[in-house]
Amino acid sequence: MYIGVDLGGTGIKAGLVDEKGNILHKDSCPTRAMEDYKVIVADMADLIKKVLNDTDTNTSEIKTIGIGCPGSIDDKNGVVIYANNLNLHDAPLAEELKKYYDVPVYVSNDANCAALGEFFALDDENITDIVAITLGTGVGSGIIINKKIFTGTNGIGGELGHTVIKANGEKCTCGRNGCWEAYASATALIREAEKAAKENPDSYLAKLVAENGGKANGRIPFAATEKGDEAGKKVIDKYILDVAEGIVNIINTFQPHAIVIGGGVSNAGDALLKPIEEYSKEHCYGGIFQTKISIAKLGNDAGIIGAAFLGK
Amino acid sequence: MYIGVDLGGTGIKAGLVDEKGNILHKDSCPTRAMEDYKVIVADMADLIKKVLNDTDTNTSEIKTIGIGCPGSIDDKNGVVIYANNLNLHDAPLAEELKKYYDVPVYVSNDANCAALGEFFALDDENITDIVAITLGTGVGSGIIINKKIFTGTNGIGGELGHTVIKANGEKCTCGRNGCWEAYASATALIREAEKAAKENPDSYLAKLVAENGGKANGRIPFAATEKGDEAGKKVIDKYILDVAEGIVNIINTFQPHAIVIGGGVSNAGDALLKPIEEYSKEHCYGGIFQTKISIAKLGNDAGIIGAAFLGK
Repeated sequence: MYIGVDLGGTGIKAGLVDEKGNILHKDSCPTRAMEDYKVIVADMADLIKKVLNDTDTNTSEIKTIGIGCPGSIDDKNGVVIYANNLNLHDAPLAEELKKYYDVPVYVSNDANCAALGEFFALDDENITDIVAITLGTGVGSGIIINKKIFTGTNGIGGELGHTVIKANGEKCTCGRNGCWEAYASATALIREAEKAAKENPDSYLAKLVAENGGKANGRIPFAATEKGDEAGKKVIDKYILDVAEGIVNIINTFQPHAIVIGGGVSNAGDALLKPIEEYSKEHCYGGIFQTKISIAKLGNDAGIIGAAFLGK
Repeated sequence: MYIGVDLGGTGIKAGLVDEKGNILHKDSCPTRAMEDYKVIVADMADLIKKVLNDTDTNTSEIKTIGIGCPGSIDDKNGVVIYANNLNLHDAPLAEELKKYYDVPVYVSNDANCAALGEFFALDDENITDIVAITLGTGVGSGIIINKKIFTGTNGIGGELGHTVIKANGEKCTCGRNGCWEAYASATALIREAEKAAKENPDSYLAKLVAENGGKANGRIPFAATEKGDEAGKKVIDKYILDVAEGIVNIINTFQPHAIVIGGGVSNAGDALLKPIEEYSKEHCYGGIFQTKISIAKLGNDAGIIGAAFLGK
């Protein structure tokens, strides 16, 4: 059995995970984000102890512990180089947690852990390479090559959300203009939906936005489109096209067996998936479309499961 | 010692390559491109025989033979799936050449071979991951991860020239709009230079184009810029920016140790390299710029050397 820890800016989640990737039990506690890493690891150790106690599990039954953490991680040494919402700088999480548990400890970026979780969830021995993306506040991405997380030579590669698809385009949080994230994130979808609602005050989209206190969310433009609203459809069509451009870029670059789409926007399901598939089929290089595109299965549990399997 | 073969649409080149990647001797013959693959391989075998004879080398001294070939290649089985300028379809080149030489034979895409050649030419044991791009008629790319050619799961990945940097932009040969190739190839540079010459008939750029029979080439806009010509400088600045956008995308995706730029345009040297470095430093994700960008060293020999080392 394995322990997976998902260390976030507001909470720490820990789960006991079996060989097949099922979470047998999980628990959480708040992250004391502004404290020293030793305090955070002590809380983490307590949480793991609770999970073990609550399941009558002995430490000797645990093969590995994995920690997923936002930011730049030195996977090899289990050190968080930098995580801006956690006040962590060169924090040796693995070394510190080993003081509590005599078990191999691994640390990786949370998006990469989620990708690894989704990879195992596909549960197909013919699949070795996947790219998992999350369409949320930003566009996260995790790349699995040959069953292993790929992060480039320094641990910070695989930032597909920060590859430009429209040079000189929308401002991105990373400082560049025209990044995929600036078009394919839920944030971008909301931005465009609110703009369209303003420009089309009589639309059903505008009505839904007004009912939501003047704010759009990732569901509203899909809901408007379902009702046949033209303004909503325009927003969705453009959004999906921009998502699809990035997906085709991924295919032409990695030719992965699978691309898994997660994050809030992925709740749209087939309304998102089908047009992306169609566009990819038509536009991928050489017309060879062999990548299976699907919606992520694990939701918020992907991070725990992926972290648990970091040493697998 | 190794034999590297560069199979092109018009000629076959073969070289005897030593352990250090030096070509000891090379020779070439025309490609009978419209003939059956068996005829092409017979010519290849004759050419190799000539190279061996001319260097008094015995077949038993040859560790491996590698063939670089344009198109889609099944590296694992040494089969050319499709090469449009060679009339090859599912051609088992490795198997066929083994009939002539009892030596392991490897086949890979020519751009990937060139990348592998440039990788070995860097001759730095700390470097395991590079991306080699060629700015020529198109934008070719070869990706080396962990000292091995990366082509995705089906052998046709790594087509970085066909990732979109300006969605809905210039038409690309691949059918998409806005591919990197449509902005960063020599073809694109020539297109923009000719356009600028027409729009600025009094410019030095226009003079150089006129002197060249009304046609630009990859050198002319750089030459005009060197002389302080504004029209030329505008073309070059925009071109380099577009090249750099793709370079930063590569860094954010692969965080390779090195990016090597080859192809005709790379003859511009520092005039190309320096502004790309500067832009990358400023715009790469998290401001962490650890990728060494350089001009390719091997020129036209990269394909032979890389092919020779396919089995290394």
